Amino acid sequence: MLQPGDTIGILGGGQLARMLCLAAAPLGLRCHVYAPEADGPAFDVCAARTIATYQDEAALADFASRVAVVTYEFENVPAETAAFLAARVPVRPDPAALARTQDRLVEKTFIRELGLDVPAFAKVDSLVELEAALAAIGRPAVLKTRRFGYDGKGQATIREATDPADAWAAVGEHPSILEAFVPFTREVSVVAARGLDGTVVEFDLCENVHRDHILAETLVPATARPETATAALAAAARIIEALDYVGVLAVEMFVVGEGGAERVLINEIAPRVHNSGHWTIEGAKTSQFAQHVRAVAGWPLGSAERLGRIRMLNLVGPRAEDWPSIAADRSAHLHLYGKGEARPGRKMGHVTYVESVAASEKDRAGASLRMDRPGSI
Amino acid sequence: MLQPGDTIGILGGGQLARMLCLAAAPLGLRCHVYAPEADGPAFDVCAARTIATYQDEAALADFASRVAVVTYEFENVPAETAAFLAARVPVRPDPAALARTQDRLVEKTFIRELGLDVPAFAKVDSLVELEAALAAIGRPAVLKTRRFGYDGKGQATIREATDPADAWAAVGEHPSILEAFVPFTREVSVVAARGLDGTVVEFDLCENVHRDHILAETLVPATARPETATAALAAAARIIEALDYVGVLAVEMFVVGEGGAERVLINEIAPRVHNSGHWTIEGAKTSQFAQHVRAVAGWPLGSAERLGRIRMLNLVGPRAEDWPSIAADRSAHLHLYGKGEARPGRKMGHVTYVESVAASEKDRAGASLRMDRPGSI
Repeated sequence: MLQPGDTIGILGGGQLARMLCLAAAPLGLRCHVYAPEADGPAFDVCAARTIATYQDEAALADFASRVAVVTYEFENVPAETAAFLAARVPVRPDPAALARTQDRLVEKTFIRELGLDVPAFAKVDSLVELEAALAAIGRPAVLKTRRFGYDGKGQATIREATDPADAWAAVGEHPSILEAFVPFTREVSVVAARGLDGTVVEFDLCENVHRDHILAETLVPATARPETATAALAAAARIIEALDYVGVLAVEMFVVGEGGAERVLINEIAPRVHNSGHWTIEGAKTSQFAQHVRAVAGWPLGSAERLGRIRMLNLVGPRAEDWPSIAADRSAHLHLYGKGEARPGRKMGHVTYVESVAASEKDRAGASLRMDRPGSI
Repeated sequence: MLQPGDTIGILGGGQLARMLCLAAAPLGLRCHVYAPEADGPAFDVCAARTIATYQDEAALADFASRVAVVTYEFENVPAETAAFLAARVPVRPDPAALARTQDRLVEKTFIRELGLDVPAFAKVDSLVELEAALAAIGRPAVLKTRRFGYDGKGQATIREATDPADAWAAVGEHPSILEAFVPFTREVSVVAARGLDGTVVEFDLCENVHRDHILAETLVPATARPETATAALAAAARIIEALDYVGVLAVEMFVVGEGGAERVLINEIAPRVHNSGHWTIEGAKTSQFAQHVRAVAGWPLGSAERLGRIRMLNLVGPRAEDWPSIAADRSAHLHLYGKGEARPGRKMGHVTYVESVAASEKDRAGASLRMDRPGSI
């Protein structure tokens, strides 16, 4: 159990690391951020910093000697880096969880072996295998590289008219999997935490809207039958326990089927704090960032109680230029990540609206939900 | 109006500066902390730092050249330091407000001239003047140095049996004022913010309990007649406007009288974020720290809406050793300031309990308030 004044090492210097630092400080814990890029937004709010590559063993050894535990903000930590650090200092979550989720084939197989539903998938290591997989799974389908894909990168959708050779070229002929295209009614996620003592605490089911493969909006609670929400939370709990995971992860899912046939298919596991959990900063008793800090510090987890109806909007690229109107909106919680240039597709910040519990209860009692969407965003 | 990425300079590196840094970051603003002590808790969460005395003109000039605005976490900024910086960069709140509040005689005279009630007081520059003041004001009374007093330092209570010479010696024979001892029913404070555009936003009236001259506990809303609360908020608004103040200040008051005769006397002005406003981090829509950042950045102020019934406990000295039980209490919001040694009287952290609005409304409807006090604190 870390003591106040102890230091958490964080691999990665982006907005997730930044928000982890902001959550660790109120608990009296210091953060040491390790990242290759000198302009990482987390460097503005941490007690110590290392700017070095993930292959720099001298820098990694020095880092390990200065921290009580190491965690990370991204799933693509090189396995060698994680192993090098784990030999010197506790790394939480365990690098074994990374290994399970860095490869889509390993991940999907793991989830299916837990008895959970996943879209049909097949291994694709060649164009010949792709053609065989298409024959088995049908079209449309999605070809995804097994490793290093995020925000839609390394993916190709194969429709009726798509030449498989084009899709195979589009993913760089990297080892891939073919997944059945899922005609989902909506996308949801569960943000779950597991403490060092095995306690699991989950936030309420999130409903996510993507645009251009990037999360645009999260609504909580998700529109779903109570049975579906319960099943989604149970599936995420099954996964976090099976991984013997310590920290916060998110499980992304598809909701399929109508009425009593509604159910979830597991899409993927993000072994880290997650964009669909940003609303917890103001919208829950404990934020996902504080929860992750508590878990990796060996502290008891906090309450995941939700404080109202939630709407979270990502400020992607030039949308962040609307900050003055958001700052002037007293119902909005503005978050900017301190990044320089608002390039298209770059996550610059987010904004959270929390409609109070009292108002939400009125809503559940039948009144209409008045959560006006600002016209500019 | 500061832009995201701009830097706020903060004089002072204590917990107030630390919490200002933590509030500035989500708005995309960087903080540069300037303090003489290398171990200031704010240094763990800021983007840039200067460790130098407040008399070091080279360091001050460099600091001024790197920030878009300067603010401070404490009221005893030397006037020369403030003037030196104000010649180079906007200083908010204006150093003139400091001058009005650094000297108790000037402060009390200013408040009285606004037509607000203060306890009877008289200037004391000598033992002879002290004896004359005692004859006019009566006993018990409190002798306070005009400058640099806080948390009960530089004060002496004069009771029936006290030899005035002892009291005069106790305050170091410094220029002082004698104040009538106020038989208050309770102590309250108003935490108010004023934007660059003159907008005033106030948090709800706070009720404060002191132990050994240090704030022990804050309860919100304060127990007071609605008319008393309204008058207290109006008095603080009158003060913040008369000071042409930009930022957050607190006005400490005594509640005196019973029933319809209940009224407030102004005790003192703290021209900075204030311990009795720490509950706003989780208990209000906008924290006092975010509000101060918004004001000094020239941004619109946020909503001061309170989110529930509040109890805030200071963790003073060894009480901070109870952190494990507080961390395990899911109703508690723990804050530790990252200070080393838990010396007696040292503010090490605080803990806030927010009872949800829905539960509070039940309380107002007549049910009993269930806000259990943890046995250990």
